Amino acid sequence: MRIPIQEVTPDLEKATIAGWVHEERDLGGLAFFLIRDRTGIMQVTVPKKKVPEAVLHAIKEVSRESVVRVTGIIKATEKAPGGRELVPESFEILAKAASPLPLDVAEKVPAEIDTRLDARFLDVRRPRIASIFQIRSRVMEATHSFLFNEGFINITTPKVVAAATEGGTELFPIAYFEKEAFLGQSPQLYKQMMMAGGCEKVFEIGPIFRAEEHNTVRHLNEATSIDVEVSFADHEDVMQLLERLMRTVYQAVADDCADQLAHLGVTDPAIPDTTLPRLPYAEAIEIAARKSEDPIAYGDDLGTASERIIGEEMGAHYFITEWPTAIRPYYAMPNERDPSICNAFDLMHPRMELSSGAQRCHIHDQLVEQIRSKGLSPEGFEFYLKPFRYGMPPHAGWGLGAERLVMTMCGLQNIREAVLFPRDRHRVTP
Amino acid sequence: MRIPIQEVTPDLEKATIAGWVHEERDLGGLAFFLIRDRTGIMQVTVPKKKVPEAVLHAIKEVSRESVVRVTGIIKATEKAPGGRELVPESFEILAKAASPLPLDVAEKVPAEIDTRLDARFLDVRRPRIASIFQIRSRVMEATHSFLFNEGFINITTPKVVAAATEGGTELFPIAYFEKEAFLGQSPQLYKQMMMAGGCEKVFEIGPIFRAEEHNTVRHLNEATSIDVEVSFADHEDVMQLLERLMRTVYQAVADDCADQLAHLGVTDPAIPDTTLPRLPYAEAIEIAARKSEDPIAYGDDLGTASERIIGEEMGAHYFITEWPTAIRPYYAMPNERDPSICNAFDLMHPRMELSSGAQRCHIHDQLVEQIRSKGLSPEGFEFYLKPFRYGMPPHAGWGLGAERLVMTMCGLQNIREAVLFPRDRHRVTP
Repeated sequence: MRIPIQEVTPDLEKATIAGWVHEERDLGGLAFFLIRDRTGIMQVTVPKKKVPEAVLHAIKEVSRESVVRVTGIIKATEKAPGGRELVPESFEILAKAASPLPLDVAEKVPAEIDTRLDARFLDVRRPRIASIFQIRSRVMEATHSFLFNEGFINITTPKVVAAATEGGTELFPIAYFEKEAFLGQSPQLYKQMMMAGGCEKVFEIGPIFRAEEHNTVRHLNEATSIDVEVSFADHEDVMQLLERLMRTVYQAVADDCADQLAHLGVTDPAIPDTTLPRLPYAEAIEIAARKSEDPIAYGDDLGTASERIIGEEMGAHYFITEWPTAIRPYYAMPNERDPSICNAFDLMHPRMELSSGAQRCHIHDQLVEQIRSKGLSPEGFEFYLKPFRYGMPPHAGWGLGAERLVMTMCGLQNIREAVLFPRDRHRVTP
Repeated sequence: MRIPIQEVTPDLEKATIAGWVHEERDLGGLAFFLIRDRTGIMQVTVPKKKVPEAVLHAIKEVSRESVVRVTGIIKATEKAPGGRELVPESFEILAKAASPLPLDVAEKVPAEIDTRLDARFLDVRRPRIASIFQIRSRVMEATHSFLFNEGFINITTPKVVAAATEGGTELFPIAYFEKEAFLGQSPQLYKQMMMAGGCEKVFEIGPIFRAEEHNTVRHLNEATSIDVEVSFADHEDVMQLLERLMRTVYQAVADDCADQLAHLGVTDPAIPDTTLPRLPYAEAIEIAARKSEDPIAYGDDLGTASERIIGEEMGAHYFITEWPTAIRPYYAMPNERDPSICNAFDLMHPRMELSSGAQRCHIHDQLVEQIRSKGLSPEGFEFYLKPFRYGMPPHAGWGLGAERLVMTMCGLQNIREAVLFPRDRHRVTP
């Protein structure tokens, strides 16, 4: 049976490997192939006079990026990667790759992001790109086990919904039989309803869809959201949960993905501190206003430019807290002492926002009032408001963008790099 | 701070609990409340002459299913559940529930499924219903850790797609800016493309959408699919993987969800055997034909009635193998010796199909031919076919319906019971 390339050590006598032809070189009497599988790369050395006829036939036929299975003798050598090479007794082409390739897997020719995404199946064969998705998978694994260990229940809420989370904008309509329906923007309302369901600690990792028309390197029209909601908790409780999650996830990647980080040029995984700074919104605005070219005042949203200025000042992950109630969604709980600010927060990477959360308003009549004060109609939220009449506990939660987490962790410039098949204004294929 | 009810033992002196008023009973000088949180139920006993005025006021005010926080002395008593009761020093109403409730949480009045789904937030407060979703969460947890332990990479593929998996039927169209797009029926084509990407072992757990018009107790229009794909593997390899997964998941639920299974009346968790029977399709048809009232012949699909007849005969989980190529999708690999059958399989529970899988056709020209032979146009599959020209390894995989797995494990009659907010022909809310 085939063994992973990583497990082929110089002390093995014989091995069968399978993978892709990463490089080929013919020196006349001697031919060299680098064979790549997902665990590594190894050299196959073909002394043409010493191998069977069938091997000679195959190596003449094979092309770069073809899939091959090779069996042979393992020899220790300092000249080959991993200190060993394989001299083939058999060399079988499982799938021949056509030439030329639409994309250079050996990364000698840099390619534009659109060319890469059009041939994503080739792009992800590149060790640097494969590393991103190995790290993403490790992030997902660490997140799942962290939340299960914290006693959370994994829930699945519908992506086909009848109403928007925050009013009627940025929705993709679906032709759902004879009904009006949309793609869900966020599991927000559903995870809150599950608090009325007595589930107490829930999480969901799933797709969210936003019909934002602008194309930026930080936005996707289909993204993955890591969502939690906790009963009998306030914003401070769930901020601490988020701090623990961030540390756990960063630590997992630092421990298990050293090679992948190296491929990406990340020399310091920069594991977040146990306690992250809490920067009140008013102070954040002051920092932005001091250095910004445009006028910025209390009550403004924090745009890309402001986030960058504040991020430079802070230098590492931090929370922005004590947001004006006026610029947060209706479901945030106003502060008890000063209702002009609310118990909402954003978790920030120096480059951008990663997560938004809050203690939620759990009081029915107050919530109706808050929906109205945002210019929305409570009638459109009837299915959401009903649970608040029959025993809704105090609760808090957050949503964390999986792609932004991976993007900032890996130092990627475009969020599309963190998604296998990104969806944006112009792209629905492959 | 509040502690979970399960952790309130008779030897504690004092405790604060929080939860929902499950039942209330007033005997004049003495009042009893059962308080329920997600970990259990405990009795609060109120000797009216001995508690503070504020407690008397609160217990007069409170209604069933209100959320309360109660602090008091713990006393051992054999008369209360868990052998202890709480005598309150404080009794705080966090959220008062309106009366009457749209659904009886104490389960004394049976309710129709539609009434229950309309008030799902109350329905899931019932210990029996909560058990289903606790088991579902345990299934998800066990599935994730099993697949990570087996070396799989977790991937996320798009739900907004430009083409159907198996032709143009049963798709929900989306208004995606100025483009034509649909909701994904299956990650099938994407996970196969990732095999060309060199990912070798991938899994995804995510939503799938099918615009089936008929409403049955076994179908959903939005469901959760557990999908795997493995390179350098054939159908037998991934059947064995599925056997290991099934045992692991059943074992995890048997070990950790005994109370939940008891609530559901499941006395025997029926952990599947290490090796499940392989029943060739031809034999399955024979069994069905022997006992069926309608004529059934080789080449027919297996309908609900046939599945039930065969399931009764088999009595436990089993595979149906050696399917006629003609009735399986184009991407199945025909059998080398007899191409009229293919390397496809279904994993069956005695009640219904749980999973479908196959060794896939990885050879470009053969795949094009197979697409044509199903009356489909290869042009519509260009984005999918392209990877097959540039080094596609042999591969195999399956998709497993999460709801059917939970439904059969828990002995549920309607698949909607296994989904928090099911979507069907008539339901897009709540």
